[in-house]
Amino acid sequence: MQYTPTNTTIGFIGTGVMGKSMAGHLLKAGYPLHVYTRTRARAQDLLDAGATWQQTPADMARACNAIITIVGFPADVESVYLGPDGLVRNACRGSHLVDMTTSSPQLAGRIFKEAEARGLHALDAPVSGGDVGAQEARLSIMVGGERAAFDAMLPVFEKMGTSIVYQGSAGSGQHTKMANQIAIACSVMGVCEALAYAKKAGLNPQSVLESVSSGSAASWQLSNMGPRMLAGNFAPGFYVKHFIKDLGIALSSATEMKLDTPGLSLAKSLFERLAAQGGADDGTQALFRLYDR
Amino acid sequence: MQYTPTNTTIGFIGTGVMGKSMAGHLLKAGYPLHVYTRTRARAQDLLDAGATWQQTPADMARACNAIITIVGFPADVESVYLGPDGLVRNACRGSHLVDMTTSSPQLAGRIFKEAEARGLHALDAPVSGGDVGAQEARLSIMVGGERAAFDAMLPVFEKMGTSIVYQGSAGSGQHTKMANQIAIACSVMGVCEALAYAKKAGLNPQSVLESVSSGSAASWQLSNMGPRMLAGNFAPGFYVKHFIKDLGIALSSATEMKLDTPGLSLAKSLFERLAAQGGADDGTQALFRLYDR
Repeated sequence: MQYTPTNTTIGFIGTGVMGKSMAGHLLKAGYPLHVYTRTRARAQDLLDAGATWQQTPADMARACNAIITIVGFPADVESVYLGPDGLVRNACRGSHLVDMTTSSPQLAGRIFKEAEARGLHALDAPVSGGDVGAQEARLSIMVGGERAAFDAMLPVFEKMGTSIVYQGSAGSGQHTKMANQIAIACSVMGVCEALAYAKKAGLNPQSVLESVSSGSAASWQLSNMGPRMLAGNFAPGFYVKHFIKDLGIALSSATEMKLDTPGLSLAKSLFERLAAQGGADDGTQALFRLYDR
Repeated sequence: MQYTPTNTTIGFIGTGVMGKSMAGHLLKAGYPLHVYTRTRARAQDLLDAGATWQQTPADMARACNAIITIVGFPADVESVYLGPDGLVRNACRGSHLVDMTTSSPQLAGRIFKEAEARGLHALDAPVSGGDVGAQEARLSIMVGGERAAFDAMLPVFEKMGTSIVYQGSAGSGQHTKMANQIAIACSVMGVCEALAYAKKAGLNPQSVLESVSSGSAASWQLSNMGPRMLAGNFAPGFYVKHFIKDLGIALSSATEMKLDTPGLSLAKSLFERLAAQGGADDGTQALFRLYDR
């Protein structure tokens, strides 16, 4: 079985920066789409484009057979899935539930088990690629759960991303995303320190960016965030507060696995310092502020 | 004035992993080439291809009008340039001296001044792109010194690299390279921690590499060194011992400029621990060994 526009009613919970673009692609592809989000106004564009509003996750669960969530924090995921009015208790047998929030691997495991006990199929499928990746349907989607459920959802994932990889059993999508965030955290820190060094040394940072982007230091963060840092553009593509949440999950998972990750620990502490100084609602590139003074 | 094969005799000092490929490109382009290196056997391929051997830097200085050096450590640079038998004391007025070693910005400044006092033109022009970049003449070359000297050497640089950027006065090439190494240090650390996390979490690291290379965590280090780490291939493209030298220069420059670079400090301490455990002659990707156990 695969979810195509003729056999599917998609429910979409969470129409923030990422979710809104992602749900829009599904609607355009012809999938009947129901939406729910905390602040109804944020779903208005989708409603205008033909989506159906649902009052609660429970109503959503009863109306749809493939439900996607992308909300803020693990606590939100827990309440949407496992609360009394949540998806697991109210979904119809055989439905698929896909959490695309970056959340805890352990919670993904719990949701999978509780869903399974009720004849539901849960996947964890967090994404990378930022607001631009969501808009252009070029996300990297990292999926954990049962292979058959992955196969069923694949046509839907293909409307939102270009790199869609099955990573293994429940929680594996989240674990993969944690590896992704660890690499990003260190990468952003390196870009900040390199550009701050260049400025302090009296170099022209644009020329340095040109040289450094062409060799072994090249990275997505350098090419995409370097110019924003130098321009003092700290508008959020990805919120510092959400990144701190991700790094906290990664660090506690690493600690549980007895893996020492000093780079991750250091980067997390720097982002926390930035948040404490009022940067929680900035984009991650605002880390440059800690250095450039 | 520009150095073309008809008006130039190039001297090349240091035919190690990088220098050998770089000098080879100049020879192929038709430049008369004289070589000197500590261990003559290492220049044999170039001598067989038509290069002329010189016994000392002083002999080299008298025979050539554009002299390129790429040796190991700042102490080697200092002796080749400023020693009694060195380039500055023995070169002919108007000659160009180009140090492509990654070395100290302060030393580059000293060499520039002493060269200038004798009517010589010194440039600092370190490179990035590794052994592969050198072989394929696709290096990033970061140049400090006088603009006119840069212009004169440009045709020669173009035989070795694709990104050739004038960064400013003497020492600016080295400072740019320091920024480059800072970004790399943090990047390698992040790749190690991400892949070690993936293995500890029981994921298939190849699948994780596929997902993570496609989003905002993408980097040269991840794509080029990630697979070598996972394969346990720690052969040197770039030596740990040389990287520690670079990071030491970067850190002492940053400290002088009163710039706090905790990511750089941490990465340097990890590479030092690796070297203390016997990894000094491995490639930088061997940092993975500290994590993967």
